[in-house]
Amino acid sequence: MNLDYLFNPESIALIGAAHTEEKLGGVILKNLLRFRGTVYPVNPNYNELMGLKAFRSVQEIPGFVDLCIIMRPANEVNAIFKELKGKTGCAIVVSSGFSEIGNTGPQDELKRLGREANIRILGPNCMGLFNPHKNLDTFFLPHERLRRPGKGNTAIVSQSGAILSCLLGAMQSSNIGVSKAVTYGNAIDIDESDLYEYLAGDAQTDVVISYIESVGDGRRFIEKAKKLSGKKSLIILKSGKSQSGQSAAFSHTGRLAGRYEVFSSIIRQSGISEASDLDELTDSAKALSYQRPFKGNRVLIITNGGGSGVLAADECMRQGLEVAELPDEKREKLKKAFPYFYGIHNPLDLTGQVKDEDYITALDELTDAYDGFMVIALPNVIGITERFPALMKNFRMRTDKPVVSYMAQSGITKKLTVLLERSKIPVFSSPERAVRALRTLLL
Amino acid sequence: MNLDYLFNPESIALIGAAHTEEKLGGVILKNLLRFRGTVYPVNPNYNELMGLKAFRSVQEIPGFVDLCIIMRPANEVNAIFKELKGKTGCAIVVSSGFSEIGNTGPQDELKRLGREANIRILGPNCMGLFNPHKNLDTFFLPHERLRRPGKGNTAIVSQSGAILSCLLGAMQSSNIGVSKAVTYGNAIDIDESDLYEYLAGDAQTDVVISYIESVGDGRRFIEKAKKLSGKKSLIILKSGKSQSGQSAAFSHTGRLAGRYEVFSSIIRQSGISEASDLDELTDSAKALSYQRPFKGNRVLIITNGGGSGVLAADECMRQGLEVAELPDEKREKLKKAFPYFYGIHNPLDLTGQVKDEDYITALDELTDAYDGFMVIALPNVIGITERFPALMKNFRMRTDKPVVSYMAQSGITKKLTVLLERSKIPVFSSPERAVRALRTLLL
Repeated sequence: MNLDYLFNPESIALIGAAHTEEKLGGVILKNLLRFRGTVYPVNPNYNELMGLKAFRSVQEIPGFVDLCIIMRPANEVNAIFKELKGKTGCAIVVSSGFSEIGNTGPQDELKRLGREANIRILGPNCMGLFNPHKNLDTFFLPHERLRRPGKGNTAIVSQSGAILSCLLGAMQSSNIGVSKAVTYGNAIDIDESDLYEYLAGDAQTDVVISYIESVGDGRRFIEKAKKLSGKKSLIILKSGKSQSGQSAAFSHTGRLAGRYEVFSSIIRQSGISEASDLDELTDSAKALSYQRPFKGNRVLIITNGGGSGVLAADECMRQGLEVAELPDEKREKLKKAFPYFYGIHNPLDLTGQVKDEDYITALDELTDAYDGFMVIALPNVIGITERFPALMKNFRMRTDKPVVSYMAQSGITKKLTVLLERSKIPVFSSPERAVRALRTLLL
Repeated sequence: MNLDYLFNPESIALIGAAHTEEKLGGVILKNLLRFRGTVYPVNPNYNELMGLKAFRSVQEIPGFVDLCIIMRPANEVNAIFKELKGKTGCAIVVSSGFSEIGNTGPQDELKRLGREANIRILGPNCMGLFNPHKNLDTFFLPHERLRRPGKGNTAIVSQSGAILSCLLGAMQSSNIGVSKAVTYGNAIDIDESDLYEYLAGDAQTDVVISYIESVGDGRRFIEKAKKLSGKKSLIILKSGKSQSGQSAAFSHTGRLAGRYEVFSSIIRQSGISEASDLDELTDSAKALSYQRPFKGNRVLIITNGGGSGVLAADECMRQGLEVAELPDEKREKLKKAFPYFYGIHNPLDLTGQVKDEDYITALDELTDAYDGFMVIALPNVIGITERFPALMKNFRMRTDKPVVSYMAQSGITKKLTVLLERSKIPVFSSPERAVRALRTLLL
């Protein structure tokens, strides 16, 4: 089952292209202007749209079109789709107004038409996809509104277009690069299982995060999810956990959410990771896209603020991570190396009088004694400077064990974060979030 | 027990003042230059420091000094303190190196000296306080590193200076104003109970957030916390929940953390709110400082992204909030008012084709039917504009029920957030965090 017409088309037709960005069909066309391939705007009222020759219908386009995007009201979609037979390999139906509002008849008909014509369908009620490697972007979201993340190793598979857009925004601001991002809405044909299968074989993807409201074929879903998570990192966020969430999920995409407890226990048994909320999904993606997992659960916490170290230790406990005391011999050594008022335990408290190099002195001494490192730097004291990320970068090159960081907000936090993240040390905005991310890299 | 020497001094001596911001004693002096009162730098090696006349010792300062700050190594502190007898009403001992590193003898001696001289002591091992109403700021954190929040109605009481600095950073960037912020470290004299008592009577404070690692006198703590939370909003974050967290807390301030379960159950029985982590503490403060609580648990979720609505509904369930379906009559009315593809349920899905005024149409129709409102605006679609916060501001003036918002990251999110928060509608960075904050305003 090849989804190359979807992910790597050479040519695209946009049915419902508009001349202005005040219409969603105009926003999509604008975004398609960046595409590295041929774009055919389709709109019977124009000869030209945004500098491209416009076509009255798909039939008028010469030759085969790899991918067609339909952005017209629901009641026109099936008639339009009938014209695609033999003309295209895949259609993205952006239009909403199908089973999610109880309009199941036309949706079933669309499904039948797709099978008959041998055309794969993504949607309806979806935003399509983003493939930065081809500058392919079918979203009806202007770039001024949603800056796209750069290229990277993380794929997003989201039933909801809204969640996809939230995740893209979070990834952009968290310096996480994207390999592919795709939404599938009501999933009458292409669903999460197809997409998992495709991404399992996608060389550009190492990490997959997936937002699911409902699953069509449960058995197939588990099979494909297991296969994918055997090869790559897969983290799933399942919504529709509550009854109101379930009915909301139903009215959102018209598929039943099913009992969450059943879903969750099967997922867990299959060894697939589950995120508990949106922040955890992004944070896990960040950790896993930056670093490789390591087997073990002994964590060293280094901090320049006692309280932050205590909160991190608490979260380690909740996450099943062990904050073991320093080996005696190391303690003695560090006691000699550091001022008398430093707290030479785990958490290791370098206090507000810290100097950048203290972190490295401690980390170098203790690299072998622990499996993962939680580095807390509160850069509102004068002892933390721009040398800190440079020193951490060098340390990072000496170990393949996971290292995450929490930095409080300060005048230099943004600058230090960018530098640390360039060296693939992920920085999080609270001690608890950093520990939860570290846990995805351990155990 | 009056803490006015601490919170509202007219004169301050800084023992251990330095000439350069490369030393902590220099940073503190620099920050004290903003103080609306008299500042006496004490350092035997200088005649003048940062433009102020310097004194060789406290004894040389003419007259009584309301507040003395001691920023000298631990082994000098007690000798210095002896000179303060009759000279001052309160001392902040910033120095660390006492019981938190096992150095209990000198700490006990300091405590005895304080009682004997009738001088209240804050610390040792603390950062002192911030009172924006007097431009009083004893922190050794430069303003370039930590921008202080503006004046407001929220007080911070934190055992840890590091956590205080994290909270101040978070509050500054969340547009939460501060009435007082104070750290008390090893708490040999002034402790959380004293501070709660003071703040219960402080006219500038409506909300108190408190970070606690350990409690000295448990009975008194509960009494004062109950009294405070009867008058104002009090939210406590207790750390030292894990065994490693407990020993970390001990080595941080030298007080025993005690069994967390016991603490938590007493707190709950006393009707005091507890936050589970740092983010929740800040988010609760934001909600409570912006709006008044309302009795009820029926929540309306309005969204322009189905998936985000489903996640919010899930979190409502986890928080014990009810996402009840719209009243039939209201549903019929809204179905007529809105396009056919909108999802007229709860969550109410205005889809990616939303217009700003749709939110108000729905809110006005449903204000009476619900107790609290969760407004999700994903501003990466073109239908959300700068009119949105203006319309929401008007709605806010028509109701006293809680309204919170979640906005995804987009090109205009920052701008819209500032405008919404000026109208006292708090904006959060994930649907789950927004719902958790709404919960603190309901029930």
